[in-house]
Amino acid sequence: MNLRSRLRIGVIGGNHPKPEFLKLAYDVGRLIGRNGAVLVCGGLGGVMEEAARGAKEAGGITIGILPGSRTSDANSYIDFALATGLGYTRNSLVAMNADVLIAVDGEYGTLSEIAFGRIYGKEVIGLGSWDIKGMTRAATAEEAVELALKRRP
Amino acid sequence: MNLRSRLRIGVIGGNHPKPEFLKLAYDVGRLIGRNGAVLVCGGLGGVMEEAARGAKEAGGITIGILPGSRTSDANSYIDFALATGLGYTRNSLVAMNADVLIAVDGEYGTLSEIAFGRIYGKEVIGLGSWDIKGMTRAATAEEAVELALKRRP
Amino acid sequence: MNLRSRLRIGVIGGNHPKPEFLKLAYDVGRLIGRNGAVLVCGGLGGVMEEAARGAKEAGGITIGILPGSRTSDANSYIDFALATGLGYTRNSLVAMNADVLIAVDGEYGTLSEIAFGRIYGKEVIGLGSWDIKGMTRAATAEEAVELALKRRP
Amino acid sequence: MNLRSRLRIGVIGGNHPKPEFLKLAYDVGRLIGRNGAVLVCGGLGGVMEEAARGAKEAGGITIGILPGSRTSDANSYIDFALATGLGYTRNSLVAMNADVLIAVDGEYGTLSEIAFGRIYGKEVIGLGSWDIKGMTRAATAEEAVELALKRRP
Repeated sequence: MNLRSRLRIGVIGGNHPKPEFLKLAYDVGRLIGRNGAVLVCGGLGGVMEEAARGAKEAGGITIGILPGSRTSDANSYIDFALATGLGYTRNSLVAMNADVLIAVDGEYGTLSEIAFGRIYGKEVIGLGSWDIKGMTRAATAEEAVELALKRRP
Repeated sequence: MNLRSRLRIGVIGGNHPKPEFLKLAYDVGRLIGRNGAVLVCGGLGGVMEEAARGAKEAGGITIGILPGSRTSDANSYIDFALATGLGYTRNSLVAMNADVLIAVDGEYGTLSEIAFGRIYGKEVIGLGSWDIKGMTRAATAEEAVELALKRRP
Repeated sequence: MNLRSRLRIGVIGGNHPKPEFLKLAYDVGRLIGRNGAVLVCGGLGGVMEEAARGAKEAGGITIGILPGSRTSDANSYIDFALATGLGYTRNSLVAMNADVLIAVDGEYGTLSEIAFGRIYGKEVIGLGSWDIKGMTRAATAEEAVELALKRRP
Repeated sequence: MNLRSRLRIGVIGGNHPKPEFLKLAYDVGRLIGRNGAVLVCGGLGGVMEEAARGAKEAGGITIGILPGSRTSDANSYIDFALATGLGYTRNSLVAMNADVLIAVDGEYGTLSEIAFGRIYGKEVIGLGSWDIKGMTRAATAEEAVELALKRRP
């Protein structure tokens, strides 16, 4: 079960997305799971929870990197919950631990993860998210995950 | 010399800005120093160094929050160098330790600091920097510092 | 494969233990794996590697929380490698992410993890390690893991 | 006012020391201030506050590296309060930012700072604190500060 040979796709987005993005996050997660990639996220609600739910329902594996110091804060679709106690500073670690990132909607927290993704040289794919120089845009969940899967080693 | 009653203005921007921004950073720093505010920055070169040089030449006080684990990495205009050993993750702490931020030019590192500034509810003033929703734009160093000084408690 | 219901046992100890402790670390890891607990460690060599090797050979699951920013630094027995980029500061996160800790030999890095374990209210079991007030002592790998398993929820 | 040429002495110890250690912490701080060294501490109460009070009353300069995300948490004798939002994980940064450490009394938090001090190759002087291999023991505040001042560059 060594997961290090699998592509890790980070899904970033907020706790309280606009409603239409919840379905999109779920679809992104489902496609990640179906394709055998590992989902990395911030472990909480909203986009993070829906993406993790999608991944689990497709038989995937999920990692949640939490701001707090208790793994019990993780949503119920997280396999590996990692507590950091770093608060929002943990956003850097979410970006660091993904091979490629998909941003779904998102506010300033997501923006910080996009920025760290680019700092760390990761491709960042946007789905109705911030429009930042150097990001790749996708129109659908399918397109976003397809683009991300190209990063497979 | 208790500095906690003074306004702390963060100046964020990269190690290798476009040349015209070096003079702007210097002017921002000088005005911060002249007005008795404390300059907070990332402690390294480029925008950070020019802003700190300006602040010191105007008799100000400067704090540098460094990515590495050695205070000797700080540029020579930093009074209080704080080593973090956190790498780029320290960007969160730069934003956390300023009452208001002025972004001068800047790449993805600066973008992460803008994002953290907004996460932490700080006003972020842009001078030829990223154009992010919720930021305030200024056209000159004078205007930027004047706007920042309004945050005085 | 939700691992959050499983006991997480942290094994802490250095990269360069006294040789007799390598076998002990391996035995601790093997017993952890055999008993269905999850092994949490710092992900590098020495005690960390031998414990992870033991756990994997017994069919267990291993998590490595790394000081550097690349998951490729992990030893080859780590299933979930988490990069932090925090340097030694990551020792806090190793302690935070275990329900109970077993210290095998160890130098100052291990001592910091013992201290954080106690700060976070975790039982810390020592096997030829530091003799710190509040730790539990064990004489053998069997005894150490047996004590740790009592923390099962 | 460049402080980087001055020796930085970290004073570590808990929020709730045994009462006789408050006077000792105050004396240590006073001697640090009188000798022109900079006091670095965790910025909160107990040993940290008494040491900072002593340093200020002797005309010294004090830095507090705080666990929380608000500088207003600092005790009133801190000149430079640095918020980290890292919780206990900030203990690593206290040790990193001192040239030499004096431990006064102290519980597990102090133990973690002693450990990080040794990890980072700093001399750690104990005053009624933990008895850890590699520490130097002092019997009085005077002796502790005298030993620390020898680390002057």
